[in-house]
Amino acid sequence: MKEHNLQQTISLLTRTPAALNALLRDLPDAWTLRNEGDNTWTVFDVVGHLIHGERTDWMQRAATIVQFGESRAFEPFDREGQVRESQGKSLAQLLDEFARLRSENLVKLRAMNLRQEDLMLRGLHPSLGAVTLSGLLATWAAHDLTHLHQISRIMAYQYRDAVGPWNKYLGVLQCDGHSSSS
Amino acid sequence: MKEHNLQQTISLLTRTPAALNALLRDLPDAWTLRNEGDNTWTVFDVVGHLIHGERTDWMQRAATIVQFGESRAFEPFDREGQVRESQGKSLAQLLDEFARLRSENLVKLRAMNLRQEDLMLRGLHPSLGAVTLSGLLATWAAHDLTHLHQISRIMAYQYRDAVGPWNKYLGVLQCDGHSSSS
Repeated sequence: MKEHNLQQTISLLTRTPAALNALLRDLPDAWTLRNEGDNTWTVFDVVGHLIHGERTDWMQRAATIVQFGESRAFEPFDREGQVRESQGKSLAQLLDEFARLRSENLVKLRAMNLRQEDLMLRGLHPSLGAVTLSGLLATWAAHDLTHLHQISRIMAYQYRDAVGPWNKYLGVLQCDGHSSSS
Repeated sequence: MKEHNLQQTISLLTRTPAALNALLRDLPDAWTLRNEGDNTWTVFDVVGHLIHGERTDWMQRAATIVQFGESRAFEPFDREGQVRESQGKSLAQLLDEFARLRSENLVKLRAMNLRQEDLMLRGLHPSLGAVTLSGLLATWAAHDLTHLHQISRIMAYQYRDAVGPWNKYLGVLQCDGHSSSS
């Protein structure tokens, strides 16, 4: 990962909360509280998942790499952790919380003053094995994108019948790029 | 399509320009001017395509349905029309233009004062045959979502190597829900 790509990563990480806020705040529940069928997530669930990642995943793993290298594996990420995070909250509250946590994490990331060679530091993922700090940070950004991708698909699913014969033209209704655990 | 779903459609159509603006404005070109390989679009191209739809597709087709019903087919939509729309412009200019055109179109849509029975009006699509005004308006919203889905995929593609072994966990990198013409 080249130096400018850390800036590229940060530029995206900085924008995701505002993008989700602009898209989702005060949308009718029919867009945000419906899922894609049994055992799938609503938009509300996805935002809770993003919050859980800010609390327990990305910066914790970055710190583990810097402090322990490959001598200590990351804590496994709990993909259902957002259920606890989200209980009793509104989507507006989740959007605020995501924005606050992301902003705090980017302050911490900048404070790490990572140099080019630091990005090559290695860590130990509990399932993937050896990984780099560079890969972790790139994945943080790509993880935002995979969930933006998922949110647009969940929402489009709610209109799969309403669009009538146009459904075959809409790629989002043919997507099978569903994420597994991260 | 029930009455409240027209409001659901409008609620999304209203938010898309601000969401794209929050996500994309001033992002490094490495996110917005790269594509997914030969004959694919950049994020910049996609925003140009959305503009072209605002100019020539959705409201024109709605007007054709109301005025001519099934007696006159829609003009075919030019999927390459965004090349002309976008030439010599910056992404910031395209985002401004999309926001302005969308806002103007929503004023026109509201001014049509569509009643429940109007949504069942039928029109003639040049390839799909008989369609309804309801389906057209639902497709307008779902079309926003298919391109938000595409934008997140184009951007994630730029990090397909940078994420290292995490690539198999990221659904967006496995997506094959690519749109055809609309």
